[in-house]
Amino acid sequence: MDSAANSVLALSGGVGGAKLALGLADVLAPGQLHVMVNTGDDFQHLGLHICPDIDTLLYTLSGNANAAQGWGLEGESWHVMDALARLGGDTWFRLGDQDLATHLRRTALLAQGDNLLQVTDLLARQLGIASHIHPMCDSAVRTTVHCEDRDLPFQHYFVKEQCAPAVTGFSFAGIADACPNERVMALLDSGAVSAVIVCPSNPFVSIDPILQVPGLWQALRDAPVPVILVSPIVAGLALKGPAAKMMAELAVPVTARGVAQHYCEQYPGLLDCFVIDDSDATLASDIAALGVEVAVTPTIMKSREDKQQLARSVLALAGV
Amino acid sequence: MDSAANSVLALSGGVGGAKLALGLADVLAPGQLHVMVNTGDDFQHLGLHICPDIDTLLYTLSGNANAAQGWGLEGESWHVMDALARLGGDTWFRLGDQDLATHLRRTALLAQGDNLLQVTDLLARQLGIASHIHPMCDSAVRTTVHCEDRDLPFQHYFVKEQCAPAVTGFSFAGIADACPNERVMALLDSGAVSAVIVCPSNPFVSIDPILQVPGLWQALRDAPVPVILVSPIVAGLALKGPAAKMMAELAVPVTARGVAQHYCEQYPGLLDCFVIDDSDATLASDIAALGVEVAVTPTIMKSREDKQQLARSVLALAGV
Repeated sequence: MDSAANSVLALSGGVGGAKLALGLADVLAPGQLHVMVNTGDDFQHLGLHICPDIDTLLYTLSGNANAAQGWGLEGESWHVMDALARLGGDTWFRLGDQDLATHLRRTALLAQGDNLLQVTDLLARQLGIASHIHPMCDSAVRTTVHCEDRDLPFQHYFVKEQCAPAVTGFSFAGIADACPNERVMALLDSGAVSAVIVCPSNPFVSIDPILQVPGLWQALRDAPVPVILVSPIVAGLALKGPAAKMMAELAVPVTARGVAQHYCEQYPGLLDCFVIDDSDATLASDIAALGVEVAVTPTIMKSREDKQQLARSVLALAGV
Repeated sequence: MDSAANSVLALSGGVGGAKLALGLADVLAPGQLHVMVNTGDDFQHLGLHICPDIDTLLYTLSGNANAAQGWGLEGESWHVMDALARLGGDTWFRLGDQDLATHLRRTALLAQGDNLLQVTDLLARQLGIASHIHPMCDSAVRTTVHCEDRDLPFQHYFVKEQCAPAVTGFSFAGIADACPNERVMALLDSGAVSAVIVCPSNPFVSIDPILQVPGLWQALRDAPVPVILVSPIVAGLALKGPAAKMMAELAVPVTARGVAQHYCEQYPGLLDCFVIDDSDATLASDIAALGVEVAVTPTIMKSREDKQQLARSVLALAGV
């Protein structure tokens, strides 16, 4: 396979999306996979520039992710956090020792004038990753979670409050001024992309921020390549994270059809194929009625083989 | 002893001076010791605000210093540095995991608007230190080491180059605009200080920056309290660090008398008593000829008891 003429572009948030990205990286040729990653979760903490979703991709694709825990690094230690606690510091966002090194490196590189695209690329290369990891944009976009009684920066909602508050909506500060990652746009323009895979990430806080970077979803819609989305909701449950809870609070049906409807309404004409799990096969005709092709296949990724199999399935749907 | 009326003010650089500070803290009443610390070695590294001499005092007086190694913390681990090395980061200045927590905490507190006096005080309290640790000033003073072929920021000279280049002089950027620590000045003004002890620290890069904060050495000279300095050079060798090497390169005799001459010329009338080691007893009359009283006593501090004994000796000289 000629990787230059057959790049695959995946869109991903954190842990849930990274599972499929890992499967795709496994079954594609080295360098063939490009992952465009949500940066709405990024924040400054303890003076460090932290990119949780990018880091999840870095750790997952380099084989360093802690699979049992579901986040962070394998063999991580916590000496800095323990010492920081003794000094009365903020420890609600637990930064492991190895993870801290990533943030220190990123923060130092940004301070010396590199942009987030360059820094992410350098970190990926240092970790020996053959795939390309692209922040959705270079400028700061920050997700705010609107809750019934207050607005919360994403990490405060997600980590500090552990997703407890009921959500009423989301906004992405800075998105109106953001430009889609120029490397991804150049790749699309060059005709090198043969498929776009939207990973099973949270629609509201992982994929929406990416698609709402001005001009991006329209560019994906207009590119002559299939756009295939894997439902993050299976049998009424989120594969990972608060997506199902959010849908319930937003009065969206907590089903794969609810997800499909969100995308069809928000981004008309974008999706060429909506992939649902075998267990949701009875929803296929209802989803097809929204005007999108539906594919039914096992989508739950527990083992490495599951991830590779789902990757093969979506690539086959795309004709790659 | 009434600590309010009998405060002892020590001036100190890092490791060498901290030994005597520890002895003083041991033999004085809790809270009686105030240590004014050099900040000319401070620097920004990896986005963190690092104060090596203040930290040495924090770690030494809290009982956490690594005595065998001579710097850093007991039981320190290096997970962040090891991970940073794998990411191609700067690791020439080795920051241990626990030590990093101090820098993260300090940097975060400064970023939220606290000044270095407040931050140092808070760190000392969190570490359970009864003594008071005072940065020499609040504003940035940065020591430059002038070498034969170039100028080096202090930590580049001290750590990166391991003191190898021959020095020709020193300067302290920002010192003309610095104000002596207001808490120390208020303490002096209040008459609460009963003695000033200049610890056996490097004259050029530890004590000179403190004394050259505008107005400070004159205030110490004019205060009606004895100023007692312990020679950092014993039998022609530095107790710790590059002091002897620097003196040789500056063509100053590498003896306790060379040290005394430096202080008597730079700060006329400041010293009331110059303390030399038993092994230098033959130098006493030569030093006295400079116009300073000389005391001879064991000054080499290996054990905790050595530190306490020297502390008792200098306090006795001061009449405390």
